[in-house]
Amino acid sequence: MNLDYIIPNNWSILEEGFNPDLVESSESIFSLGNGAMGQRANFEETFSGATFQGSYIAGVYYPDKTRVGWWKNGYPEYFAKVLNAPNWIGIKVLINGVYLDLHTSTKVSNFKRELNMKEGWLSRSFEAVLPNNVEVKVNTKRFLSLDLDEIGAIKYEVTPLNGDAEITFEPYLDSGITNEDTNWDDKFWDTLNVSHDNHQAFIQAKTMKTDFYVCAFMESEVFIDGKTLLIEPKIQADATTTTFSYKHKVKQHQTYGIHKFGGYTVDRNHPKVELVQAAKTALKKATDFGFDTLLTMQKDAWAKIWEMADITIDGDVKAQQGIRFNIYHLNQTYLGTDASLNIGPKGFTGEKYGGSTYWDTEAYCIPFYMATKDQSVARNLLAYRYNHLQKAIENAEKLGFSNGAALYPMVTMNGEECHNEWEITFEEIHRNGAIAFAIFNYHRYTGDYSYIPEKGLEVLIAIARFWQQRATFSTHKNKYVILGVTGPNEYENNVNNNWYTNYIAKWCIDYAIENIARVEKEFASDYTRIMNKTRLSQAEIEQWKAVADTMYFPFSDEHNIYLQQDGFLDKELVTVANLDKSQRPINQKWSWDRILRSPYIKQADTLQGFYFFEDHFSTEELKRHFDFYEPFTVHESSLSPCVHSIQAAKLGQMDQAYTFYLRTSRLDLDDYNHEVHEGLHITSMAGTWMSIVEGFGGMRIKNNQLSFEPKIPNQWDAYSFKVNFRHQILKVMVSHQDTKFELDGNEDLSILVHGKTVLISPNNLVSI
Amino acid sequence: MNLDYIIPNNWSILEEGFNPDLVESSESIFSLGNGAMGQRANFEETFSGATFQGSYIAGVYYPDKTRVGWWKNGYPEYFAKVLNAPNWIGIKVLINGVYLDLHTSTKVSNFKRELNMKEGWLSRSFEAVLPNNVEVKVNTKRFLSLDLDEIGAIKYEVTPLNGDAEITFEPYLDSGITNEDTNWDDKFWDTLNVSHDNHQAFIQAKTMKTDFYVCAFMESEVFIDGKTLLIEPKIQADATTTTFSYKHKVKQHQTYGIHKFGGYTVDRNHPKVELVQAAKTALKKATDFGFDTLLTMQKDAWAKIWEMADITIDGDVKAQQGIRFNIYHLNQTYLGTDASLNIGPKGFTGEKYGGSTYWDTEAYCIPFYMATKDQSVARNLLAYRYNHLQKAIENAEKLGFSNGAALYPMVTMNGEECHNEWEITFEEIHRNGAIAFAIFNYHRYTGDYSYIPEKGLEVLIAIARFWQQRATFSTHKNKYVILGVTGPNEYENNVNNNWYTNYIAKWCIDYAIENIARVEKEFASDYTRIMNKTRLSQAEIEQWKAVADTMYFPFSDEHNIYLQQDGFLDKELVTVANLDKSQRPINQKWSWDRILRSPYIKQADTLQGFYFFEDHFSTEELKRHFDFYEPFTVHESSLSPCVHSIQAAKLGQMDQAYTFYLRTSRLDLDDYNHEVHEGLHITSMAGTWMSIVEGFGGMRIKNNQLSFEPKIPNQWDAYSFKVNFRHQILKVMVSHQDTKFELDGNEDLSILVHGKTVLISPNNLVSI
Repeated sequence: MNLDYIIPNNWSILEEGFNPDLVESSESIFSLGNGAMGQRANFEETFSGATFQGSYIAGVYYPDKTRVGWWKNGYPEYFAKVLNAPNWIGIKVLINGVYLDLHTSTKVSNFKRELNMKEGWLSRSFEAVLPNNVEVKVNTKRFLSLDLDEIGAIKYEVTPLNGDAEITFEPYLDSGITNEDTNWDDKFWDTLNVSHDNHQAFIQAKTMKTDFYVCAFMESEVFIDGKTLLIEPKIQADATTTTFSYKHKVKQHQTYGIHKFGGYTVDRNHPKVELVQAAKTALKKATDFGFDTLLTMQKDAWAKIWEMADITIDGDVKAQQGIRFNIYHLNQTYLGTDASLNIGPKGFTGEKYGGSTYWDTEAYCIPFYMATKDQSVARNLLAYRYNHLQKAIENAEKLGFSNGAALYPMVTMNGEECHNEWEITFEEIHRNGAIAFAIFNYHRYTGDYSYIPEKGLEVLIAIARFWQQRATFSTHKNKYVILGVTGPNEYENNVNNNWYTNYIAKWCIDYAIENIARVEKEFASDYTRIMNKTRLSQAEIEQWKAVADTMYFPFSDEHNIYLQQDGFLDKELVTVANLDKSQRPINQKWSWDRILRSPYIKQADTLQGFYFFEDHFSTEELKRHFDFYEPFTVHESSLSPCVHSIQAAKLGQMDQAYTFYLRTSRLDLDDYNHEVHEGLHITSMAGTWMSIVEGFGGMRIKNNQLSFEPKIPNQWDAYSFKVNFRHQILKVMVSHQDTKFELDGNEDLSILVHGKTVLISPNNLVSI
Repeated sequence: MNLDYIIPNNWSILEEGFNPDLVESSESIFSLGNGAMGQRANFEETFSGATFQGSYIAGVYYPDKTRVGWWKNGYPEYFAKVLNAPNWIGIKVLINGVYLDLHTSTKVSNFKRELNMKEGWLSRSFEAVLPNNVEVKVNTKRFLSLDLDEIGAIKYEVTPLNGDAEITFEPYLDSGITNEDTNWDDKFWDTLNVSHDNHQAFIQAKTMKTDFYVCAFMESEVFIDGKTLLIEPKIQADATTTTFSYKHKVKQHQTYGIHKFGGYTVDRNHPKVELVQAAKTALKKATDFGFDTLLTMQKDAWAKIWEMADITIDGDVKAQQGIRFNIYHLNQTYLGTDASLNIGPKGFTGEKYGGSTYWDTEAYCIPFYMATKDQSVARNLLAYRYNHLQKAIENAEKLGFSNGAALYPMVTMNGEECHNEWEITFEEIHRNGAIAFAIFNYHRYTGDYSYIPEKGLEVLIAIARFWQQRATFSTHKNKYVILGVTGPNEYENNVNNNWYTNYIAKWCIDYAIENIARVEKEFASDYTRIMNKTRLSQAEIEQWKAVADTMYFPFSDEHNIYLQQDGFLDKELVTVANLDKSQRPINQKWSWDRILRSPYIKQADTLQGFYFFEDHFSTEELKRHFDFYEPFTVHESSLSPCVHSIQAAKLGQMDQAYTFYLRTSRLDLDDYNHEVHEGLHITSMAGTWMSIVEGFGGMRIKNNQLSFEPKIPNQWDAYSFKVNFRHQILKVMVSHQDTKFELDGNEDLSILVHGKTVLISPNNLVSI
């Protein structure tokens, strides 16, 4: 743990006291989002201290030209950048001729910040003495509406404390913004038009190259002690900004307030030429409701989300705050309402990692969305990959594959690969496995087989083709091998026979064959359509089988474990416990070669396979592998602690499970990895959810039934969660005494608890 | 072979006929250089077709900011760019209002180009019909003076053939040049001043960041039918160019000529503020001599070089042309007169590969310079690395090494690493071995041990320290292993136990220990100085010994060979013979992952070790390894065929040796690797020299004596070469009948021929 300034609270993220060094971290932690847009918790007023300004629009990115030291064949021509979008939140505050700026204020006191997760808003209050000795009290509140997802609303209030003051609110729009993620200060936006109409202003801009058209807009109203003031603003505009000035002489202790509504209309939702009109429509709705009504609606909308998605933890406020923080940000990032979007690893909180879609979606996020939303959301996430199948086939062709083999991109925005490290782009091919696994997982959980004949089978076939072509036969080993890969543990590159990769490759082929047979039998017309489209022959399937049946899995007789890769045992097997703390995190301290030859594991790799394919291995095998690998694991990937928490819980190592749970759930709140200022780890937050539901709750699907093995950490009194299982909602309440189940639905539900069948009837609390 | 338009000739490179598609290739092949500067064979007059403009100054580079997809700790902040320097060769030719331009001419005939290697000049002649129907004959000749190495000279003559014509010569200087090696059209030069003084013009410019100050200059004189014309030029200048216009009405069949002298003065040789004055001094010398006298001096200077360095081949004009082409370009690139310079892989013929110094210098170039120049040249090349020792230690520290361990950069200009692919920069560490080997090789050849106590031992200690720290102990193998390296075969990355690397690592340690003992015994004061400086203890030496004595070498019992690396046998061992030609060169056709998992070898790797440490292995062992590895070798590194030619000759496989000889000697002339337009492969040219002297001639040092095992390819009648051995010059003439030796020196020389001692007396032809 490297930061501990966030005040524990069940429902809110709280910060007290102003520390300029923490501004960038808090900008990440207190971020807002509503699925369509999001923004870091930048101050509305001027701030001349260190800040990372960021406002992001879902689906808007920039394909930056690949620039590498040495070009390698197959590199994608571009890599996607998450783009900082025109600023609409800014309100400069001029007080007796001096701009309010916490960095230049001579005194800042009673600084408080709250991210109210229950109701979905961010507030801030403080008192400041300006360089001209004017003392003011400031209260702000801001939210991004879930109901009107093109709209954000800000209430900003200033009260002069030591005399009358002439105060000017200067709400503005600014498209002259820069990106944090740029080495060479490029501009990514063309501003097309800056205009205004009464109290409204608009900046139409488009991204360079990708030509995403966006209209940033704003409308403001000012108040004195809560009463509307009719001030005609002074309007100033230049090529990339427009500023409205509302000047007023404010008496001591009077409160001068402004409501600013703003946001974006984008050409994903409207015709390009109607973006201003759409903005006017959105503003009309927002101002008709007004700030307070919109805020009430916001509370209601979040209440609905929490009603389904909340996890309660009694007796451990930090743990409670952690899980809600994770669930909150997941819902800020992706609500499942737009099938063309996906879940970026930093959501709307930063720019790192570029693209929006990693294997994180399939491996970590789908279980969360499957259980806390309508199953159509998970189906949409699967369909996203189906819609990109042709591009995945083209991507594989660039790497020399043929005959419809698909390699899904490691990182993408639109189906094309947009990452350019060869060891990742070309070699971290296990991602294909997670995409197939998600299809399996979706069917297993929802029972909805229809997706497979409809769409999934084509994906499975293309992936099986890839694995068959990618494996090579080693006469030396008399087995099929997969050479030159990067496994989930990205701290090893270009290794041979990564166990996880080989295992999921074999599984993908077996699973494809199994489904081909089932679709042939049960969905004849789909079968014919797919066979015609893919031109798959029995002879080809035999080739697949040969690979799957003769796959090599590195194994150590000495340790009685599968080896993470062929060369693992040649490493100096010094555990993390013996690694000096000054060397952590190694990805910030060590050169890449040193990391690669070390035994240190970034994230679950072999254990990730044991997580996916739990049924294939005994608990004793799991324990041996956990005991062997965990001591070498530095968990410098956000995706690591959750899987370890689940596995530790399964092994009954509850203290370890709890430690990993805290690490995954408070990864960003406590900044375990020294990087929260760059943004939050959104996708791993779904892993946090899994660590409770699957880890402590022990939830699985067994024989087409929900199954639980509830456990509870000593540190907790009780916890509860809900899952949406096949259109019924099951609430699970675990305490040290018992586990209670309550079903919200229409039909009896047969579940397994510690292996025994239990029948749950709707609205009938069952205690086990 | 992919191009065959170069006309075979013993002493010249000849091209006949104008083919616009070959312009860029010829610009490389016909390049000029004089050690201090060089240039591609760009046309003097306007050329609007495809061209790669390049003029380069020794030691002038630009440290471009490292731009990678994903930053890795330890990356150098910059990578060096070879910089295209201000153009001084340009002469626009305006004929009746139309610029002469072969790309727009309606007819080009009798186009001939000659690179006269014997005399060191480039000429070109052609007849062209301009779009205005004026027909002209053009003759040009150009050279870069060896005697005045700041001076180049051009004679350019135009004769109107179908009527009188008004012709304007417009010689110019231009610092508004761009680099071929730039993805983003950056400028690298600041022009400081553009000035002129009578018939002289000057552009003072400096490189951005590195602040190399350069003055490009020119002076011209015009002639009609060889007689000086006194024309006052019209002078035009702007921020980055200056153009002198010499207009004359030329009668049909009269020849209007211009002599242009130009070049660079640089702050490596003069105070920054005196560059213009130095240019005037240089121009004064040049114009006092005049074009014809300078050309005569040039012929004499090249005659001196050839007197020592020439290799003759009788009965095979292509082979003869090839070796002279190689020797010529080596001497154009590096003459050994400036110890701060080194031998860039593309010399002055292109920009690829960035820096100037690779392990090529030690592994390939030193033997050539050692045998064809005074031994001080080779000593200078060693001292270059000694002077960079501190930077090599700092470079190692960046990668986590300590206690004075040194890792020499893979690519450098000034001792700092300037390459940024992790698999090369951090992992291609065998380069350290070649640097130690060169010290051994220098002592072996010259008998001059003084370099080692003076400078070499410190380098050897720092390198031994590196290897000891870099090796790790594998309890699994019970041996020291070297994990995560890239061997000479760059078509495998991050492999474990590359045999060549492990072998040279062990050798480096052994050799360091051996020399520590000798210096202690024979050079006590040097020993004390070095021990004080390096704080080397016996205990540390014991640690080195443990590593050297217990080093692991991967070996295959099945094949009875050392394995190139641990995983080699797991590859699909399909030989190059079975690789479809359409897939070659694989580095232009395949994605990187596919290359990496293939068995294809870019260049000699295990065989490189057998070349360096020939005495450690039997001929039978060499044959087994040659027979195993060569069939997988694609020779897509220019450094590969020469070593294979030497090894094939040693094995008596003369047809193979001959084929490899042609490939190395005509690599660029015949463009084997589809890339000659990017520039020539300068450093491999020294390998070509080795393939004759060490390959066919079988020259070695054995027991402190020169030893020969002369062989001759069937395709040749005879060949001869000279070597400067310990201040005497031995000429070796080999035919199918005998081998003759002739000594130019003062003392009898005892040599070995086919293992038998032969005494050669000065000026006494000995036939064996």
